[in-house]
Amino acid sequence: MKKDELEEMGFANIDQYRAKRTGAPEAVFCPGKKPRQIAEIMKALTKENEGNIIATRATENDYAAVKKVLPRAVYFEEAGIIAAKRKGAPKKNAGSGSENASEGKLKGTVAVVTAGTADIPVAEEAAVVTELLGNHADRIYDVGVAGIHRLFDKIERIRNADTVIVVAGMEGALASVVGGLVETPVIAVPTSIGYGANLKGLSALLSMLCGCANGVGVVNIDNGYGAACLAYKILKRRENA
Amino acid sequence: MKKDELEEMGFANIDQYRAKRTGAPEAVFCPGKKPRQIAEIMKALTKENEGNIIATRATENDYAAVKKVLPRAVYFEEAGIIAAKRKGAPKKNAGSGSENASEGKLKGTVAVVTAGTADIPVAEEAAVVTELLGNHADRIYDVGVAGIHRLFDKIERIRNADTVIVVAGMEGALASVVGGLVETPVIAVPTSIGYGANLKGLSALLSMLCGCANGVGVVNIDNGYGAACLAYKILKRRENA
Amino acid sequence: MKKDELEEMGFANIDQYRAKRTGAPEAVFCPGKKPRQIAEIMKALTKENEGNIIATRATENDYAAVKKVLPRAVYFEEAGIIAAKRKGAPKKNAGSGSENASEGKLKGTVAVVTAGTADIPVAEEAAVVTELLGNHADRIYDVGVAGIHRLFDKIERIRNADTVIVVAGMEGALASVVGGLVETPVIAVPTSIGYGANLKGLSALLSMLCGCANGVGVVNIDNGYGAACLAYKILKRRENA
Amino acid sequence: MKKDELEEMGFANIDQYRAKRTGAPEAVFCPGKKPRQIAEIMKALTKENEGNIIATRATENDYAAVKKVLPRAVYFEEAGIIAAKRKGAPKKNAGSGSENASEGKLKGTVAVVTAGTADIPVAEEAAVVTELLGNHADRIYDVGVAGIHRLFDKIERIRNADTVIVVAGMEGALASVVGGLVETPVIAVPTSIGYGANLKGLSALLSMLCGCANGVGVVNIDNGYGAACLAYKILKRRENA
Amino acid sequence: MKKDELEEMGFANIDQYRAKRTGAPEAVFCPGKKPRQIAEIMKALTKENEGNIIATRATENDYAAVKKVLPRAVYFEEAGIIAAKRKGAPKKNAGSGSENASEGKLKGTVAVVTAGTADIPVAEEAAVVTELLGNHADRIYDVGVAGIHRLFDKIERIRNADTVIVVAGMEGALASVVGGLVETPVIAVPTSIGYGANLKGLSALLSMLCGCANGVGVVNIDNGYGAACLAYKILKRRENA
Amino acid sequence: MKKDELEEMGFANIDQYRAKRTGAPEAVFCPGKKPRQIAEIMKALTKENEGNIIATRATENDYAAVKKVLPRAVYFEEAGIIAAKRKGAPKKNAGSGSENASEGKLKGTVAVVTAGTADIPVAEEAAVVTELLGNHADRIYDVGVAGIHRLFDKIERIRNADTVIVVAGMEGALASVVGGLVETPVIAVPTSIGYGANLKGLSALLSMLCGCANGVGVVNIDNGYGAACLAYKILKRRENA
Amino acid sequence: MKKDELEEMGFANIDQYRAKRTGAPEAVFCPGKKPRQIAEIMKALTKENEGNIIATRATENDYAAVKKVLPRAVYFEEAGIIAAKRKGAPKKNAGSGSENASEGKLKGTVAVVTAGTADIPVAEEAAVVTELLGNHADRIYDVGVAGIHRLFDKIERIRNADTVIVVAGMEGALASVVGGLVETPVIAVPTSIGYGANLKGLSALLSMLCGCANGVGVVNIDNGYGAACLAYKILKRRENA
Amino acid sequence: MKKDELEEMGFANIDQYRAKRTGAPEAVFCPGKKPRQIAEIMKALTKENEGNIIATRATENDYAAVKKVLPRAVYFEEAGIIAAKRKGAPKKNAGSGSENASEGKLKGTVAVVTAGTADIPVAEEAAVVTELLGNHADRIYDVGVAGIHRLFDKIERIRNADTVIVVAGMEGALASVVGGLVETPVIAVPTSIGYGANLKGLSALLSMLCGCANGVGVVNIDNGYGAACLAYKILKRRENA
Repeated sequence: MKKDELEEMGFANIDQYRAKRTGAPEAVFCPGKKPRQIAEIMKALTKENEGNIIATRATENDYAAVKKVLPRAVYFEEAGIIAAKRKGAPKKNAGSGSENASEGKLKGTVAVVTAGTADIPVAEEAAVVTELLGNHADRIYDVGVAGIHRLFDKIERIRNADTVIVVAGMEGALASVVGGLVETPVIAVPTSIGYGANLKGLSALLSMLCGCANGVGVVNIDNGYGAACLAYKILKRRENA
Repeated sequence: MKKDELEEMGFANIDQYRAKRTGAPEAVFCPGKKPRQIAEIMKALTKENEGNIIATRATENDYAAVKKVLPRAVYFEEAGIIAAKRKGAPKKNAGSGSENASEGKLKGTVAVVTAGTADIPVAEEAAVVTELLGNHADRIYDVGVAGIHRLFDKIERIRNADTVIVVAGMEGALASVVGGLVETPVIAVPTSIGYGANLKGLSALLSMLCGCANGVGVVNIDNGYGAACLAYKILKRRENA
Repeated sequence: MKKDELEEMGFANIDQYRAKRTGAPEAVFCPGKKPRQIAEIMKALTKENEGNIIATRATENDYAAVKKVLPRAVYFEEAGIIAAKRKGAPKKNAGSGSENASEGKLKGTVAVVTAGTADIPVAEEAAVVTELLGNHADRIYDVGVAGIHRLFDKIERIRNADTVIVVAGMEGALASVVGGLVETPVIAVPTSIGYGANLKGLSALLSMLCGCANGVGVVNIDNGYGAACLAYKILKRRENA
Repeated sequence: MKKDELEEMGFANIDQYRAKRTGAPEAVFCPGKKPRQIAEIMKALTKENEGNIIATRATENDYAAVKKVLPRAVYFEEAGIIAAKRKGAPKKNAGSGSENASEGKLKGTVAVVTAGTADIPVAEEAAVVTELLGNHADRIYDVGVAGIHRLFDKIERIRNADTVIVVAGMEGALASVVGGLVETPVIAVPTSIGYGANLKGLSALLSMLCGCANGVGVVNIDNGYGAACLAYKILKRRENA
Repeated sequence: MKKDELEEMGFANIDQYRAKRTGAPEAVFCPGKKPRQIAEIMKALTKENEGNIIATRATENDYAAVKKVLPRAVYFEEAGIIAAKRKGAPKKNAGSGSENASEGKLKGTVAVVTAGTADIPVAEEAAVVTELLGNHADRIYDVGVAGIHRLFDKIERIRNADTVIVVAGMEGALASVVGGLVETPVIAVPTSIGYGANLKGLSALLSMLCGCANGVGVVNIDNGYGAACLAYKILKRRENA
Repeated sequence: MKKDELEEMGFANIDQYRAKRTGAPEAVFCPGKKPRQIAEIMKALTKENEGNIIATRATENDYAAVKKVLPRAVYFEEAGIIAAKRKGAPKKNAGSGSENASEGKLKGTVAVVTAGTADIPVAEEAAVVTELLGNHADRIYDVGVAGIHRLFDKIERIRNADTVIVVAGMEGALASVVGGLVETPVIAVPTSIGYGANLKGLSALLSMLCGCANGVGVVNIDNGYGAACLAYKILKRRENA
Repeated sequence: MKKDELEEMGFANIDQYRAKRTGAPEAVFCPGKKPRQIAEIMKALTKENEGNIIATRATENDYAAVKKVLPRAVYFEEAGIIAAKRKGAPKKNAGSGSENASEGKLKGTVAVVTAGTADIPVAEEAAVVTELLGNHADRIYDVGVAGIHRLFDKIERIRNADTVIVVAGMEGALASVVGGLVETPVIAVPTSIGYGANLKGLSALLSMLCGCANGVGVVNIDNGYGAACLAYKILKRRENA
Repeated sequence: MKKDELEEMGFANIDQYRAKRTGAPEAVFCPGKKPRQIAEIMKALTKENEGNIIATRATENDYAAVKKVLPRAVYFEEAGIIAAKRKGAPKKNAGSGSENASEGKLKGTVAVVTAGTADIPVAEEAAVVTELLGNHADRIYDVGVAGIHRLFDKIERIRNADTVIVVAGMEGALASVVGGLVETPVIAVPTSIGYGANLKGLSALLSMLCGCANGVGVVNIDNGYGAACLAYKILKRRENA
C-alpha cells in the first residue's frame, strides 16, 4: 500500500484511491459529524476522485456548510444526499430525482421498489446514489403486499431491470415476494417504518433474512446507500465481463 | 360462581362448565404433564362435557395412557391430538384427517393455509380441532410467497371460507398477502420453522404483528389449537346471530 | 386485476377497490407522511369509496391540511383519527365520541375494554373506527385486574357484545381474564403504557400471546385501528351468513 | 468477621454461620455440581447448623450420593429437594408433602398458589422449603385466570395466609390479580412453563414486574426456593416484632 | 363486590375501598395522564379515603393542577410525589423529606439504601411513600459496591431496620451484597441509571433477579413506589400479628 | 399463471418451472421433513427440471431414502447436500468437492472464503451449490482477521473471482475487511460458530449488517445455500448482458 | 476501614482514599447529576487528593458550575471532561489535547486507535484521562477495517505503545484485527456509532466480546474513561515491578 | 508478511509465528472440530513453536485422538485443556493443577477468583493456561458476594497478585466488588452458571460491563482462556519494561 494514497486531516484519513480499489468512492456518513468536518472531508475527497463525492443522511445545515467550500455541490432533499463532482456537477431534477447525474459508460437499470409511501426517503437514497454512480433507477413505489395486485401491475418493469432493490418496513414481506418472481439478484433494505413489534426495523430485517426466496441479499436497516453500492458492484461486474 | 362447577383432583381444578361459559371445552396441554395425569384429567372432563375432550401436543405415550382409561379416544398423529367423546367417538380418516368428527349444527368452513411443508403439523393441530368443534377444515398447504402463483391458484377456495387460518414460519409473509386478498377475518399462526435469524419463530411472529394488511389477529408461535378456538368462536357468533 | 382499480399519485398507489376486495377501506397511517401527502391521498381515496375514509395517528396539523382539501372531514382528537365521507360526514360528539357516524345496515356491538386510564387513546382509536364502520362501540374503561371487581361489575355488558376488544398495557393480564369469561372472540391490543420491564409494550404483547384463555387474537402494540378492522370483519361475516 | 466461621473444602467455602447472619441456612444449588460434591458440602454444612440443610434441583442421583454420607437425608421428588437435619430428620408424607418437617416456634402460613398444573414442581420447591423452615404451606393449585372463578373459590384461604407465593408461567397474570385482592405481601414466581412467545419464562417474568397491583416482589424464573426464603424472612420479622 | 365501592368518572373507575381490601390506597401514576385528569382523580379519591392520596412521577405542572382542586396537597420535588389528605395534610420538610407525614400507629423503619447519587430520585419516591404510609424511612445513600467500606460503615443501621429497600442502577450488585448481610427481607429496585450495556436498567434488573443472596424480592425498574408498598405490607403484617 | 406449472402431492405443491421464473431450481430444505417426503419431492422435481435438483441440510438417513427412488443421486457429506440430475449425475470428488458437476455454459468463479476451520460446513454448502449451478468455487479457508496476513496471502485469488462469499462466525469481521479490499460484490454469511455473546450467530450477523464496507449483502445465519443462489444470479446477469 | 476516609455530603459519600486503595481517583459521572452537585463533589474531592480530579460526560453548563468553586478547573470539550488539580492545573492545548497534564513519574504510552471519525469523542475521553493520569496518549484516528491499509500504515506506532485502546462502533472489527497484530494488551471500547442493526452499540460490543484474537478486554459501550483507567492500572503494575 | 510463516493443511492455515507476533501461541478451540482435525492441527503447531500448544474445551475423545499423534500431550480434565510441548511436556498434578508447567522466566502471579463452586471449570481453564504460559495461578474459589466475608478473608492474597481474574455467573457482582478493592487490573469472566433471568450468562456479562468499579476489562462468557491470555500479556509487558 503506497503512502501517497492517504491524506491525513487530523480527524480523518482520506482514502483517495478507494474508487480504484473497491469500485465505489468513499461516502461521508453525516450523523455524528459536524457540518464543518463534512465540508472539509468532501473537499479533500474531490481532489483526487474523478467521479461523484457523496454525503449521506445530510441535513440542510450540512449542505450549507458544504456549499461554502464546494459551490457546485447539489442537495437531494428527500434522499438526504449531498453530491459534488470535479467537472460538471449533476443537475438536480424536481420530479424524477437525479436522472442526468450519470458518470460514464454504465447505463444498466436498477429497479427501486418500495412497499409503502413512508419507505420513500430510504428508497430515494438508493435511487439517487444509483444515478450518481451512472445507472438508471426505475422507481416503483408503494406496491406492498397488502394490495399485491399493485405489484403485479408493475412486475414486468421490475423483471426488466438488471438488479432490484426492495425497500420495505413493517413486515418486510415484499422482498420474499419479489425474490420469488424475478431472475435478477434482489437487494433487500429493511426500513424502520412501523411501530410496536416492528422494533425500529428489526421485524423487517429478520423477515428479509428468513425469507424463503433465494437470491436475496440484505443490508442494514434504512441503508439505501449500501444497497445502491451493492447494486453498482453487481452491474459493474457485468460490464467488465 | 357455583361450587359444583368445579371438580378438584389434587393436582388440577377441572373446569367442567367452561364450554358453557366460553364456548369451547377445556383442552389439556400435554407438555410438562405426565401421561397418567393427562389420562386422569381427560377422564374427569368427559364426565360433564357433551362435546369432544381434547389433548394437544400429545405423544404416542400420552395416548397410550389415555387409551387405557378412555378406550374410545382417538389419536391424530400428525396433529399430536387426542380426542375423546362421551357418545360416538370420531372416526379417524387416513387422508383428510378427521372430517367426520363434527359435533352438531355448525358446519362453516375454515381454510387452513400453510406457507410450507414443514408448517403442516401446526396446521393439522388447527384443522383437526376445527373439525372436532364441528366445522369443515379446508386444507390448502404449501402455498408460500416465494412461489406466489401457488397461492393465486387456490385463492377462490380461500375466499369462500368463513374464516382463514394462515400458518407460516420463516418470514411469515403469507399472512399479510392473504389478509390483503380476502374479506374474512384472518388468524395468523407463526411457526418455529426456520433457523438463524428466525429466532425460533420470533421473526414470523413479529412480521405477522407488523403486517400491513388489516383484519389479522395473531396467536402464539405454533399455537394451532388457539387459532382453531378463535375461528370456532368467530363462526359460532355467526350462527347465533 | 384491472388497471382502473389503481390510481397513481407518484408517491402513492391508491387502492380504490380495497373495500370491495377486503371489506375495509384503506386507511392512511399518518406518521412518516407529510400533512400535504395525507391530504392528497385522502382526497384521492374519496373519489371512488362510498364509505368513510380514515387517517390514523393524525395530529392537529395533519387535520388542518386535510380540512383544506376535504372541508367536511372531522377530527377525533383523543383517537387521533381524521374521517372523511363523500355524502354526509359524521357529526362529532363531545362526550361519547362518534356514535352517530355509522354507515349502513351493520349495527352489531363491539365492547372496547381498557385496563387503565392511560390506555384510552388506543381504545378510542378502536372505538371510533368501529363506529365509522357502522357498529356500536360499548366503551368500558379502567377495569384492570388489580381491582378485578371493577371488571365483574361490567361483565354482563361485555358478554352481550358481539365481539370484545381488550386494550391493556403493563402486564396485559386483562385479555386472559376476559377471554376466560366470554363466549365471543376477543381481540387483544397491547399498549405501550408502562415503563422499565414493560419494554415499550413488549411485556403486554408477550403476555397476551401466551395467555391461557382460548379464542384470543392479538394485534400489534397500540394498534387500535387493526383491532377495529378485525372486529368489523368478524361482524360482517355474521351479517353475510 | 471471624475466621472460624468458615470451613474450606478446596472447592467450596462453607458459610456455617449464615443462618445466624441472614436468618436462612445456605442451600446447595445442585445443577453444575457433581453428586459427590453435593454430598460433601451437605455433610460439612450439617456440622454446625442446627436447622435443616437443603439441596435444590436435586436429582435422584444426587440424592443417592447424599444418602451415603447422610443416611437420614430425605428426598422430596416433585420438589427436587434433599433435606438433612442433625437431630430428627423430617418424615416424608405421600400426599401433602413435608408438613411435619417444621423446626421450631414459627408456624405462620404461606399460601402457595399456582396458575396451572405444570407449575406445580416449582410450587412444591417453595412449599417444601417453607415447611422445612417451620411454617405451614397452604397449597392452592391450578387456579389460573382463564377460569377465574377457581381463584375466587379459594380467595378466603389465600387472604388468611400470612404471605402469598404466586407461581405462574405463560402470561403470569395471576400475580396481578391476587395482588389486587389481598392485604398480605405477594411473592411472584414466574415459571418457564409455556412455549413460543413465552421465551422460557421471560413473558411471565416481565408481566409480573409490570403488574399493576402493588406490594408484589418478584424472584427469578422457576425460583421456588428463593420465594420461600423471602416468605420466611417476612414471617420471621413478624415473630421478632 | 358492592356497587357503591366504585365511583365512575367517565375516564376512570375510582376504587375507593382498595385501602380496605389490599392495605394500600390507590396511587395515581401520572405519565400519560393529563394534569386535569390527575387532579380530578385525586379529588375523587379523597372523598372516601382516610389516609394519604398519592400521585407518583408527578411534574410541577401536574402539581399546579392538583393544587387548584386540593389546596392542601403537597409536592415532594425530588421524589416526584404529590400527596393529599382529608384531615391534616403533611408538612413538607426541606432537608429530610416528609418525616412528619405519618398516618397512625405503624412506626417501623424501612432502610432505603442507594448505590449511587443518581439513584436518589427513585429512592426518594420509596422513602416519601414509606413516610406517608406511616413508617420511618432511614435514608442511606451512595454506598455502592465499588467502595464497599461505605456500606460496612452503615451496616448496623441497615440491620436495625425492619425491612430494607435497595435502590441501584448499573450492575445492581448492591442488592446481593446487602441480602447476604441482613436478616430482614430485602426489596430490590433496579434503576435505569447507566448507559450502553445497562440497556435502560435491564442489566441491574437481571442482576437482582439472578442474585445469589436469598430473601430478595425485585420490583420493576425505577419503581420506588412499588417497593414502598411492598415494605408497607410486610410491616403491616408484623403489626397485625 | 398456468395450472400445469404446478404438480400437487398432497403435502407439497411442486413448483416445476421455478428455474425458468427465477433462474434457480427449487431446493428442498430437509430439517422438519421426513426422509420419505424428501425423496418424493425430489423425485417429482426431477420430472421437469433439466438442471440439478438439490436438497440441503440433508443427513445420511435422508440420502438413503432419496437413493432408493433416485439411484443416481449423490451426497456431499461435509456440505450436507444431496444432488440429483436427469441426465448424467455429477461425479463426487474426494478432495475438492464437486468440481466436475457443472451444468453448461456458465463458468464464472465464486471465491468462498472462511474465517475459521469450524465455518467450513457452511462454506461447503455454498461451494457445492455453486459448482452444481455451473460455476467454479475457489475455496479459501481459515483466513480470519486474528491473523490477517493469512488473508493478504490469498487476496489476489479473491480479487480475481467474479463474486466473493465470506463465511464467518464469532465477530464476523472478515466480511468488512474483504469488502474493503475487492471490487466485486461480497455476499456475507454469518455462522453460528462461537459461544456466549455470540448468541448463536447473532453477533456475526449484526456485525456484517453494520460493517463499514460497501457492497456487502448479508444472508441468514449458516445459509450457505442462499449465498450460492445470490452469487449464481449475479453471475447469470453477467452472462445475459 | 477508618471512618475518616469518608466525608459525607448528604447526597454523596466521598471516597477520599480511593486513589490509595485502587490506584485511580474517583471520577464524577455527570449525567443524572445537577451542575451544583457536580461542583460540590469535585470540590470535596480536591481536599484530600493530590492528583487530578475528573468529571466525565460533562457539559459546558456543568463546567460553568465547577469553574465557580474550582477556578483552576479546565474543560476538554471534545472529550467532555472537567479536570481539577490542587497544585498546578493542566494547561489545555488546542491541537493535541492535554499532553502537558501529566502527574509524575509514569510516562508510558497508550495508543488510542479509532475506526472512524465519529468515534473520536469517546477516544478523546480515553486519551485525555490517560494524559491526566500521567501517561502519553498516541492518537491514531480513522483507521477502520474498510480501508485496512490505513491501519497498516500506523501499525508500528501501535506496536510501540505499552497498551492499546481500540475505539470502534458499527461492526467493531478493528479490535480483533489489532489484537491479532500486537503483543500488548488491547482494551476494546465499543461505541454507539451506527444505526439499525447496530442497536446503539450492541453489535460492536458483541463483536468485540466474540473476537477471535486473544488478549482483548472489553469495557462498556462509549466508556472511554473506563478504558483509560484499565490502561493506567496495566502501566502502573509495570512501574511497580 | 513472509510466506514461510504459514503452513497450509487444506482445512486450516497454521499460523506458526503467532507467538512471535502477538506474544501468545495459537490455541485450538475444539467444539465444532473433529478429534482427527484437532490432532492434526496440534501436531502441525508443535513443529515450529517452542512453547506450549493448547487446545481448549477438549473432551476425553479429543484427547484420545491427540494422544495418538502427540504421545506426550497431557489433559487437564476439569479445565478441558490439552497441552503439548516439543521438549519436556508438563507434569500434571492431581491437587493443584499444572503448577510445574511453566515455560521460562515469567513468574508473576495471577489470582483466579470465583464467586461459586459451579464457576470452577471456567476458572480452571484460566488457571491452567496461566500456568502453561509461565506464571503462578493463585486459586481463590467460592468467595461470592452473598457471603462477602469469605472474600475479605482472602483479600490480601488477591491484592498481592499482579493481576486478578474474577470468574462469576449469576449476577456477576464479584467483579465490581473486587475492582473496588485492588490496585491491579481486573479481568472479568462472566459464566453461564445460573438459570432463568440469567439468560445463559448475559446477566453476568451485562453486570460486569456496567460495573461501577474502574479498571475492569471483560471477556466473553465462559472464556477462561481469553482471560488468561490477557493476563499473560499484561504480565509480559511488565517484564519487558
